[in-house]
Amino acid sequence: MKVAVIGIGCTKFGEHWDKNIQDLLSASQLEAIEDAKISPNDIDAIFSGNMCGGIFSGQQHIGAIAAEILNLNVASSVVEAACASGGVAIRSGLQAILSGLAEVVLVNGVEKMTDTKTPQATTGLMLAASEELELFQGATFPALNAMIAKKYMNDYGLTREQLAMVSVKNHKHATLNPLAQFKKEITIENVINSTMVSDPLTLLDCAPISDGSASLILCSEKFAKKINKPAIYIVGSGQASDSLALQNRKSLTEMKATQIAAKTAYKIANVTPDDIDVTELHDGFSIVEILSLEDLGYFKKGEAGKATAEGKTFLDGEKPINPSGGLKGKGHPVGATGVSQAVEIVKQLRGECKSNQVKNAKTGLTHNIGGCGTTAVVHIFKKEK
Amino acid sequence: MKVAVIGIGCTKFGEHWDKNIQDLLSASQLEAIEDAKISPNDIDAIFSGNMCGGIFSGQQHIGAIAAEILNLNVASSVVEAACASGGVAIRSGLQAILSGLAEVVLVNGVEKMTDTKTPQATTGLMLAASEELELFQGATFPALNAMIAKKYMNDYGLTREQLAMVSVKNHKHATLNPLAQFKKEITIENVINSTMVSDPLTLLDCAPISDGSASLILCSEKFAKKINKPAIYIVGSGQASDSLALQNRKSLTEMKATQIAAKTAYKIANVTPDDIDVTELHDGFSIVEILSLEDLGYFKKGEAGKATAEGKTFLDGEKPINPSGGLKGKGHPVGATGVSQAVEIVKQLRGECKSNQVKNAKTGLTHNIGGCGTTAVVHIFKKEK
Repeated sequence: MKVAVIGIGCTKFGEHWDKNIQDLLSASQLEAIEDAKISPNDIDAIFSGNMCGGIFSGQQHIGAIAAEILNLNVASSVVEAACASGGVAIRSGLQAILSGLAEVVLVNGVEKMTDTKTPQATTGLMLAASEELELFQGATFPALNAMIAKKYMNDYGLTREQLAMVSVKNHKHATLNPLAQFKKEITIENVINSTMVSDPLTLLDCAPISDGSASLILCSEKFAKKINKPAIYIVGSGQASDSLALQNRKSLTEMKATQIAAKTAYKIANVTPDDIDVTELHDGFSIVEILSLEDLGYFKKGEAGKATAEGKTFLDGEKPINPSGGLKGKGHPVGATGVSQAVEIVKQLRGECKSNQVKNAKTGLTHNIGGCGTTAVVHIFKKEK
Repeated sequence: MKVAVIGIGCTKFGEHWDKNIQDLLSASQLEAIEDAKISPNDIDAIFSGNMCGGIFSGQQHIGAIAAEILNLNVASSVVEAACASGGVAIRSGLQAILSGLAEVVLVNGVEKMTDTKTPQATTGLMLAASEELELFQGATFPALNAMIAKKYMNDYGLTREQLAMVSVKNHKHATLNPLAQFKKEITIENVINSTMVSDPLTLLDCAPISDGSASLILCSEKFAKKINKPAIYIVGSGQASDSLALQNRKSLTEMKATQIAAKTAYKIANVTPDDIDVTELHDGFSIVEILSLEDLGYFKKGEAGKATAEGKTFLDGEKPINPSGGLKGKGHPVGATGVSQAVEIVKQLRGECKSNQVKNAKTGLTHNIGGCGTTAVVHIFKKEK
């Protein structure tokens, strides 16, 4: 598999009270087109990841909006897989190009969460869980992830301090990313003493509510060579599903969908976990980063907490994770997240990051999940030699 | 382009008060798998068209449900382009197969509209229009389509009786389709005298609110040959977009997205409008069938009403349109519609229809739109020689 990324664009993540979905999409789309140095007319198809446009903003059919902004009549649709919508949109773009039906594809991820029409954004997000077995029973995602955390702490001896270190690291990285929502260092004590959300998870263990949009220009290898632009290539892709309700899983401390998606992507890309120099993974809650580090094959089962506390996943550690600040520090406009991870990895591989640049990064990985690991999408990126 | 359809499944469309999204999906998925005589484990990926699961049923992330029903961990996601979601899901399936990332794909379309959580389903459906320029101003889809009808009647002399004949025909066809919601013949007088919805459109000019699910098993030509099953092939695909708000269009009486999507599909399939023996098109409102007949190139501009009144689009006419009963007679569970159109065309080309069989049908076309012609998807099907 070889599909080029020739353009990237991303808005600042945070509270954009003065912007609607159109404004956010316009900003990232135009930035990506300009970065790619192509004309909008080169674009053959558009795929936009969005989870809750209908619930949050009273607007679906966002594919048509993405095309209209550029005055294009091309095929344009929305892809939804809860918080993995952005990652799945990238995969749709890959498939369109590899199928030969498109040569240049615009991939967006967008979400406008702040002025939601539901009582709270958390209510809307629960549409990603099982309506009958979870939502209707009063569960929320912090509560579901808290159960996972309790079980993991019990089974593997993860300490509260080790868990808190995930957020400490991601906030530290976010201070170095100009597009991040939170540019403030925090301490282990800050995390543990912040407002309790669902025991043991406090406010600082949970990714925030955010607005934002991210865009990629993907193209065939042939087109990339034709325009003679150095490109980063997507060389592996994996996507998998697990049961929607947690109660139907065999294990709460492993995310099967992540394991399968990663295995598939490694195989296609012909790399191993050890080959990955830089990773953006889905830390929707601190505990999810711990599980993901193991499910991606970076650390042995039960050892990710210790590795985090030892600094191994920091920017200057042996396995840098979420140099952007991750969902916790950079922000988490749900449909945009998967695409923004790819924007960060492309920047890292181009060597365009400044204070958060991972040195000599040649191979990168993005990991985006929906629900409690119900959908997982993994992509592997390589710098052209 | 050559992708085989080896399995089809479709629930009855109508009011399924005792069934939820899972039940509907289960029924059509299992029917399609049984029809294809494959094992669920042969399936590599699933794409499900759904518009308003979040709004209507409090459930998004329906891709995961579709996979979980079959105890599969494969890539599975939702595709949304308003009422064209089903047609776009088919196209996503084609792209997955043609890309080489999948060999066998399950495509679903599903919508549960009756026990909606919004005050009326019509409110939810307006999320397909422009929130700022249309929904917020109080417009509904019947009102927007009524404006189109008024303008067309003024410009081309379409009579109220000719327009009503669209619904008369589609209801007549529906009486012959066991899966249709309305098995009742109606007259021109019934249409004209039924409850006014938005002048000139009455209740019987408008497709109903429905529940339903439809499924297809698509596969590569190689896989179809391997299992030695006679298949119907998808040989052309086109998708296009137009502006979301009607006010931004140059013409109200032509649907540009349909014209572009059809032109693309004809070109890929190497056929002309004259080659199409049987068509399922998107008669969400009677006026939309009139416009579509012209935009697909079947009749000259301004002549579709006369052709309909003359019986040319009836089952035994020269250009049979909507033998299933169309959206008006068969029902319109929005996300399911595009896939159910393909189910009908495959049945027709297989020669498996009974009283509504179009004789000697060898080439068929489906036409699915979202919004007021904002998204259009056209597929062309051929019987294997």
